[in-house]
Amino acid sequence: MRALGISKFGGTEVLEQLTIDKPEPGRGQVLVKVFACGLNPVDYKIRQGMLPLPFELPLVLGYDVSGEVEAVGPDVADYEVGDEVFYSAELLSGALAEYHVVNEDIVALKPSGLLHAEAASVPLAGLTAWQALFDRAAIKPGEVVLVHGGAGGVGSIAVQLACWIGCEVIATAGRDNIELVEELGADAVIDYASQDFVQAALEATSGEGVDAILDTVGGDTFLKSFDALMSHGRLVSIVPEHMEGQPLEALAKAFFKNAEVHFHFMERERPALDALGRLLERGFIEPVVNEVIPFEVEDVARAHEQMATGHGRGKLVVAVEKE
Amino acid sequence: MRALGISKFGGTEVLEQLTIDKPEPGRGQVLVKVFACGLNPVDYKIRQGMLPLPFELPLVLGYDVSGEVEAVGPDVADYEVGDEVFYSAELLSGALAEYHVVNEDIVALKPSGLLHAEAASVPLAGLTAWQALFDRAAIKPGEVVLVHGGAGGVGSIAVQLACWIGCEVIATAGRDNIELVEELGADAVIDYASQDFVQAALEATSGEGVDAILDTVGGDTFLKSFDALMSHGRLVSIVPEHMEGQPLEALAKAFFKNAEVHFHFMERERPALDALGRLLERGFIEPVVNEVIPFEVEDVARAHEQMATGHGRGKLVVAVEKE
Repeated sequence: MRALGISKFGGTEVLEQLTIDKPEPGRGQVLVKVFACGLNPVDYKIRQGMLPLPFELPLVLGYDVSGEVEAVGPDVADYEVGDEVFYSAELLSGALAEYHVVNEDIVALKPSGLLHAEAASVPLAGLTAWQALFDRAAIKPGEVVLVHGGAGGVGSIAVQLACWIGCEVIATAGRDNIELVEELGADAVIDYASQDFVQAALEATSGEGVDAILDTVGGDTFLKSFDALMSHGRLVSIVPEHMEGQPLEALAKAFFKNAEVHFHFMERERPALDALGRLLERGFIEPVVNEVIPFEVEDVARAHEQMATGHGRGKLVVAVEKE
Repeated sequence: MRALGISKFGGTEVLEQLTIDKPEPGRGQVLVKVFACGLNPVDYKIRQGMLPLPFELPLVLGYDVSGEVEAVGPDVADYEVGDEVFYSAELLSGALAEYHVVNEDIVALKPSGLLHAEAASVPLAGLTAWQALFDRAAIKPGEVVLVHGGAGGVGSIAVQLACWIGCEVIATAGRDNIELVEELGADAVIDYASQDFVQAALEATSGEGVDAILDTVGGDTFLKSFDALMSHGRLVSIVPEHMEGQPLEALAKAFFKNAEVHFHFMERERPALDALGRLLERGFIEPVVNEVIPFEVEDVARAHEQMATGHGRGKLVVAVEKE
């Protein structure tokens, strides 16, 4: 079967088409016919060899799947052939391929009203946003939440989740994406290039600072965020690699704020994915798909480059199978 | 009245005896005759001008008081003349003086069995340890806790509090202080100069890492702590100024651990001080006073230098009044 991945780590030139055996489902696993595969920044980070995990080459990339159960292994309890499912694959088991095998415990039923291309945009970013806001920052109705990068893959879902739960939501975005983030429900959208998010956060909170911040940007934005945070506020960061070379000295501000900082790396779990599916079906949140691209090396290479600019707008999804 | 402080920021040479008016208690305040005043690292940091607070010179230093209520202001509800009290003074209101005025809401009754010199060693370090362990890290019986600097002012109380609440306690200490920290109840004491705390933490937890870490050391110790922490573990740091020049890059480890980091700056409150008082009275924890020193400039200067080495053993307390 066709797959897309790498035989060595490097720039987008190492992306290649792979021909591999169609996998078979083991105990507790399902074989999924992949209709669509969502791309994420982790794809190009893995391609570059930046993640300290025991990858084996050649390596299939792509970690967000929407598709149909084609076969089930022994002891599979919750799924049968024909079920439409979506999930985020383990990082050691890329899914940008015609078929993919996955443990059923991280799989959820695909929201019925969505195209596969839409559903495949959700799992990794949606689980990240869900866990960051609800499990880590523990945001509550009535709180004021600042989302850095509100137009991005994680940010666009986070803005909608924070609105849904009843928070007042401030988000940053590039000039071209401000209208999008307003449509997602943000109460105030800051142009990060021309406006000061600290000032906006303080104005929205009578100078107290916001209750919680989700940082999908990193670097200076991470460090400056403490100025926008209330005393005992919570800051969740999901971007390690942007912090290189920053002085920890700047963290001194965090002490005077008694800040709580959560470093978050998404964990695959079915309950939160089920919840996201229900919200999508009921229309409380919607997928933000920027572009559906062909299942070809050059298109995926272009997508990697686009994601690496950090100026994304929603998600890029590969159409693996026509729907 | 006599007081001890500074008229300009600088090295220990700027410490001087000050002659200031005996203060009068305002609404909700009590006038305390100071018997003993505990010293803390924050004393020399303020002397050096390192804290960004609106200090006015000349400035009295010293922030931990044990003494006797000499007079009460209007609307004081909980104290009367003659009560023995202890507390940690606000940083803008130093207390290394014959008398000190304080808002009653941060004052607690001095544990009856303790000398003033013992009671004055507790408030700032004890509140820091209490809040760091219970309010921030939220440690629970049965958890494994690592305390960096278990012989220090905060560390020596933290080790005892973590033991009292029923945790398994690992602590680091200098070679000369290992026996002391063992006597305080630690299950394992690591010589930080010759032993690896990460290895000790992993061995004590079947390779999982400890549930919580209290870092009173900072710098490399802070960054290396993520290797000793379990997934979703909690790390509380109380030392901003030791982090200068460290690369945030090293924080990348924190993401893979889904680490929760609390930057803690002590807050004055009566309930936790009352609780510490009860534990001291009941003998569940004990003050660790290294030396009681005279109320003289040269002795306090020596104490500042000793604290700045970072190799302290318990607390240094100034005997302001003979007891």
